Amino acid sequence: MIYKNELVKVEIEPSEIPWVKVFTQREIKEFSECTLDEKLEIFRIIDITEKTMLEYFKADKINIASFGNLLPHVHWHIMARFKTDSYFPQPMWGEKQRQAQLDLPSFNVFFKQLAESL
Amino acid sequence: MIYKNELVKVEIEPSEIPWVKVFTQREIKEFSECTLDEKLEIFRIIDITEKTMLEYFKADKINIASFGNLLPHVHWHIMARFKTDSYFPQPMWGEKQRQAQLDLPSFNVFFKQLAESL
Repeated sequence: MIYKNELVKVEIEPSEIPWVKVFTQREIKEFSECTLDEKLEIFRIIDITEKTMLEYFKADKINIASFGNLLPHVHWHIMARFKTDSYFPQPMWGEKQRQAQLDLPSFNVFFKQLAESL
Repeated sequence: MIYKNELVKVEIEPSEIPWVKVFTQREIKEFSECTLDEKLEIFRIIDITEKTMLEYFKADKINIASFGNLLPHVHWHIMARFKTDSYFPQPMWGEKQRQAQLDLPSFNVFFKQLAESL
């Protein structure tokens, strides 16, 4: 976990790409069940994470998704995508396109920077 | 297209499941480039669409995603998912799990109701 407050918590998803997940602290299933405060907090974190990923990694695209089909607890994925990653231009849940050889700056430094920005 | 205003437009994605896409009118690439008004309008539409899908279709889960890897124009997918659809619990971009035989109420009636709610 890299960040938490009374509304949400932010976790790292281990991956070849920079990927974090934002969970609501409350165990609710659908996004529309969030309070306005929870929604705004999720959007604040998406916004800062996206900007930080774009600046730090020079990502080609940011992907954002909320499924929860397996884990019925509201959580959002925020992923930095690169044209040479293993799945681009497919979503990370799609068919593998290649064996990526990404040369990215330190993930640990990024996660620290992100935690400080949140 | 089922709805538009000065900020966004809402289109139907033809699919076995109820699926709509919300585009910004402006041709921008990343969500963080949206103005506050555009963001709030997208969230308003996600919220109403999700609630309408849950009520009308008794969906098992709502999925929300913004990729734009192929089409670099901000757009959000909102999908009503069912345990018996062809991909559940995978995202709609994942591996097919079965040949679905869904028996859902009229999509046309739903799209009309949704357009009126927006």
